[in-house]
Amino acid sequence: MEQENLSVVLHAQGDLRLEHRPVPEPGPNDVVLQMHSVGICGSDVHYWQHGRIGDFVLTKPMVLGHEASGRVVKVGSAVRHLDVGDRVAIEPGVPRDMDEFVKGGRYNLSPTIFFCATPPDNGNLCRYYKHNANYCYKLPDNVTFEEGALIEPLSVGIHACRRAGVTLGSTVLICGADLTAERLTMAKDLGADFQLTVKKSDRPQDLAKSVEDMLGGQPHITIECTGAESCIQTAIYATRSGGVVVLVGLGADMASVPLINAAVREVDIRGVFRYCNTWPMAISMLASGSVNIKPLVTHRFPLEQAVQAFETTRQCLGIKVMLKCDQSDQNP
Amino acid sequence: MEQENLSVVLHAQGDLRLEHRPVPEPGPNDVVLQMHSVGICGSDVHYWQHGRIGDFVLTKPMVLGHEASGRVVKVGSAVRHLDVGDRVAIEPGVPRDMDEFVKGGRYNLSPTIFFCATPPDNGNLCRYYKHNANYCYKLPDNVTFEEGALIEPLSVGIHACRRAGVTLGSTVLICGADLTAERLTMAKDLGADFQLTVKKSDRPQDLAKSVEDMLGGQPHITIECTGAESCIQTAIYATRSGGVVVLVGLGADMASVPLINAAVREVDIRGVFRYCNTWPMAISMLASGSVNIKPLVTHRFPLEQAVQAFETTRQCLGIKVMLKCDQSDQNP
Amino acid sequence: MEQENLSVVLHAQGDLRLEHRPVPEPGPNDVVLQMHSVGICGSDVHYWQHGRIGDFVLTKPMVLGHEASGRVVKVGSAVRHLDVGDRVAIEPGVPRDMDEFVKGGRYNLSPTIFFCATPPDNGNLCRYYKHNANYCYKLPDNVTFEEGALIEPLSVGIHACRRAGVTLGSTVLICGADLTAERLTMAKDLGADFQLTVKKSDRPQDLAKSVEDMLGGQPHITIECTGAESCIQTAIYATRSGGVVVLVGLGADMASVPLINAAVREVDIRGVFRYCNTWPMAISMLASGSVNIKPLVTHRFPLEQAVQAFETTRQCLGIKVMLKCDQSDQNP
Amino acid sequence: MEQENLSVVLHAQGDLRLEHRPVPEPGPNDVVLQMHSVGICGSDVHYWQHGRIGDFVLTKPMVLGHEASGRVVKVGSAVRHLDVGDRVAIEPGVPRDMDEFVKGGRYNLSPTIFFCATPPDNGNLCRYYKHNANYCYKLPDNVTFEEGALIEPLSVGIHACRRAGVTLGSTVLICGADLTAERLTMAKDLGADFQLTVKKSDRPQDLAKSVEDMLGGQPHITIECTGAESCIQTAIYATRSGGVVVLVGLGADMASVPLINAAVREVDIRGVFRYCNTWPMAISMLASGSVNIKPLVTHRFPLEQAVQAFETTRQCLGIKVMLKCDQSDQNP
Repeated sequence: MEQENLSVVLHAQGDLRLEHRPVPEPGPNDVVLQMHSVGICGSDVHYWQHGRIGDFVLTKPMVLGHEASGRVVKVGSAVRHLDVGDRVAIEPGVPRDMDEFVKGGRYNLSPTIFFCATPPDNGNLCRYYKHNANYCYKLPDNVTFEEGALIEPLSVGIHACRRAGVTLGSTVLICGADLTAERLTMAKDLGADFQLTVKKSDRPQDLAKSVEDMLGGQPHITIECTGAESCIQTAIYATRSGGVVVLVGLGADMASVPLINAAVREVDIRGVFRYCNTWPMAISMLASGSVNIKPLVTHRFPLEQAVQAFETTRQCLGIKVMLKCDQSDQNP
Repeated sequence: MEQENLSVVLHAQGDLRLEHRPVPEPGPNDVVLQMHSVGICGSDVHYWQHGRIGDFVLTKPMVLGHEASGRVVKVGSAVRHLDVGDRVAIEPGVPRDMDEFVKGGRYNLSPTIFFCATPPDNGNLCRYYKHNANYCYKLPDNVTFEEGALIEPLSVGIHACRRAGVTLGSTVLICGADLTAERLTMAKDLGADFQLTVKKSDRPQDLAKSVEDMLGGQPHITIECTGAESCIQTAIYATRSGGVVVLVGLGADMASVPLINAAVREVDIRGVFRYCNTWPMAISMLASGSVNIKPLVTHRFPLEQAVQAFETTRQCLGIKVMLKCDQSDQNP
Repeated sequence: MEQENLSVVLHAQGDLRLEHRPVPEPGPNDVVLQMHSVGICGSDVHYWQHGRIGDFVLTKPMVLGHEASGRVVKVGSAVRHLDVGDRVAIEPGVPRDMDEFVKGGRYNLSPTIFFCATPPDNGNLCRYYKHNANYCYKLPDNVTFEEGALIEPLSVGIHACRRAGVTLGSTVLICGADLTAERLTMAKDLGADFQLTVKKSDRPQDLAKSVEDMLGGQPHITIECTGAESCIQTAIYATRSGGVVVLVGLGADMASVPLINAAVREVDIRGVFRYCNTWPMAISMLASGSVNIKPLVTHRFPLEQAVQAFETTRQCLGIKVMLKCDQSDQNP
Repeated sequence: MEQENLSVVLHAQGDLRLEHRPVPEPGPNDVVLQMHSVGICGSDVHYWQHGRIGDFVLTKPMVLGHEASGRVVKVGSAVRHLDVGDRVAIEPGVPRDMDEFVKGGRYNLSPTIFFCATPPDNGNLCRYYKHNANYCYKLPDNVTFEEGALIEPLSVGIHACRRAGVTLGSTVLICGADLTAERLTMAKDLGADFQLTVKKSDRPQDLAKSVEDMLGGQPHITIECTGAESCIQTAIYATRSGGVVVLVGLGADMASVPLINAAVREVDIRGVFRYCNTWPMAISMLASGSVNIKPLVTHRFPLEQAVQAFETTRQCLGIKVMLKCDQSDQNP
């Protein structure tokens, strides 16, 4: 194995560096991966620009990146389900303690969980990366590395849909923050049946009525991805009695919302924190072709050009920027 | 059958009258009941004092009362499961339309439901009352008429617990509005393990910490019965990650709450609207002795003294005031 | 309205007749429909050939047909959601009593339910048919009458999938009775990823192993549609621990099955009885194009040729035989 | 710490020995416990008498015992939630691999799980025992060691009730194998409302009718604890449509059962394998007094008299035989 391990390291707010780090050795339950494709997430950019997200504060240099896939190059002594050469997608959260949340199947809620590129845990935007083998999932031949990397953001959607109880035939309203024409077109191309563009002056109750008129009935479920107070209000008013509002977007700590309207119509309000148990389902969906996420990758950069890639993401150009970590294979 | 049907009728805000109304005849699916015990609910008093609750406005005279039990005196032609002489508890909500909510088993959400003593539908604070037989439930011999009447408020609790997923071993925080010593003692006697008295100056996050310290851990579930904004905030902060806050109390239309705190810890927020499918469970609980609600009745008045009874309730004396509608049997 | 109401009436085992019946008038909650498309079900043929299915025995002439759609021609006085001219799909089961099953949202289990073409209730293989309006569902313009009629068999699949908890990414084994090449090809065309043809001599445990090898893992869910004892055994052995076997096919009253194998691996065994709450979901699926059922209709006959149509079904020719009841519109 | 570690070791079928073993040292995630109370389970006796249970075969000497509690005497370096002196109950199953079952919260289904006294894993019928600290649960002061040991069999009941969906007001039929007067009396004392004694000649459908008559309706849930084919049949016939039969008892590999009766009434059949996530709930139930299990302990022996204790269990004398492992404290 070559010894170079170029890594994208955030040293402090605004101080992003490409530097060489040691190639890791696997512990008994680990694999070492030659990284292939790593997507840049809004949270990576946020740490770069602000040095923190909420209570998570950068206090020492940290490798960024958590939307990732790679190829197994070393296998820990206790690992049985992976071999050298396997192509895998990486689930970035690995519980450290077998606490009540992990035992109950909701390991995303475990307060001591390891999570790539959340301080102080290092991410995987590098050439070689070590990860717990139980959170590396083998990719079928017909799923690309980039699709493997995109399982992480896809998992947010899967988890939100599961929490909401979305099923075949559900009518779903998605409140999305994004107003750029390119992204709205992409949403339409990838499956949205209707679109409603919101103006700042629109009142939540009026918007709720517009949604109902457009859909021919109130949605069973609303997935709120903006975090804006007015959108959360719209989400509650718009949702059918007995339905669910899922909060994906995060805004201000406190929000003023029509709780009584939700309560007396038994519209449940549910949040999401990352995801759990989504990788196998996502791989199955990708392998069978029931979801198409390839068009989401609009930009690619070799790892060496990570700074340009981050700058592209910061400017909200395109949709997903992918870093290509394997010098010998920069294919999707 | 005697022909007198003394009834407690609200003519307008503040105008409560005892007057004689015709004894009803059953339709094919109805029974006529000789009423025995009817509890006075806060909503009855609220209609009396204010003439409305939210969007429900009294526009013509309405018989009050919806916590009720009685004895079958006439049976409609299509009724098969009840006979003259049967003692029954009355579920006050009867769906009118077989809409999506009723088909799905959540008939309480049906927008066209009939509901006793919600304008414009008459209640059952009277001598003789006609009700859909499918919403009259036969009482076992070891369940009293007053227990039968109390199934209605008990149902609010059952429905809230079901919505919350309360089960054996659940740690539950109940935020109750009531600060009178008598009621706190009763709560303790009927099963509360700990009590925490709240002062206006207490900060929600500090209260949440006090709850955790007292219980030796965060509650899985919080049932919020005050509707006060600060209590809803406390409920959210106090509840364990992955848990549930149920909103039973109703306060202002808009509430400012720490939605992000709830969302990122996946604490679900669920409201309740009345109840559905609770009477059989309640009767089973009462018959087997797994709940004791008899001590809740602290005052009894004959129907003729309804005005004094309402005044007693208005002054928050005691806990539950029961009106005795059967002149020949004023026992519990 | 024309007065002719040609109907397909089963008088006794083997005695199928086309005869004229009166055009019905709607009750307050009914609509009268001009029937358009009615599929022939295996149960229709079974009644014709045997005069009974299990405990349901034909004792007087009965109109056959329960996979149906039509156009509203008369509207009962209490009906608000339908108008003359509306195109609707018919849910054949209409509960008669508001019993515990109906209240709980599982009205298919109500023992007194009306059901088209189950003795003694008449079906809708005729020109004009009266049905409870609450069980007639308006079809969007982009859903054909034949798709509307096919919602009934589709509902069996939806209900089975719901009972099984099928979701995106689920690995599902379907045990189907059918060994004809045409049907296997259709299954493949409509979405099956793999097929395994079974020989009588195959042992259930060996078959289970073959399924696992083919799928690269045990299925989460098995939907057993044959009713054959050996297939139920295979279904149990094949299903992943913690998974579900749904019994759709009906065979002998008693079946010898490896219950311990299922029990200690917590493989649940669940049956289905018809369906409930499926029409709105099915219409949504059809309108959005998430399922394609049009190719299932392989034969069409005008209502006047009902006997030939039944004979075609009896001989298992094609897949679905559709009777066209509207002389002025025999389109799909 | 004293160095003696007297242990109850099964060397081969019928060859039960008391012998000294080394006192264990904890790994980083372990605690070493001074054992206090260990109940004898039917499975311990079965291994002693037969050397195997199903596919689990004794191939080398194994310490018996898995219903256990003790006191922490040594704490591994990574353990944070336990201290020396803590009184704990032991959950005997500890997953070895973070597989799909463990991630999903159903760790009892993990095929590689460690389980006390299931070959080849040693149990805890000894003086000193090492266990993963995450599966040792601190007992409150008002819960005795013997109650702590009884959490294991109680967990079987909790898990069965959870799988069944038992809730307040559920009508539950329990098919128990035991016909001795003492045990039936105990069942009645501990909460059974009715009892029905079964004769070999009773037909399952007649028994189901007797149950319905006795309860005044079919039970929502049947918990089948005998494993006898005729009882499983009775369980299915007896259970209300839409209800659940839980299989706790294990009988022959194949059972002939009325699957169609279950299927068309949507009576689900669910097995249990041990339990998961039950210890915290059980401790909460015991601490709050919502269940009383103390009367179940009818015999106690010091560890030195383990052979007499096993013989007592083998003869089905009393209900639960408890071995007292701590020479300085033989209290409950």
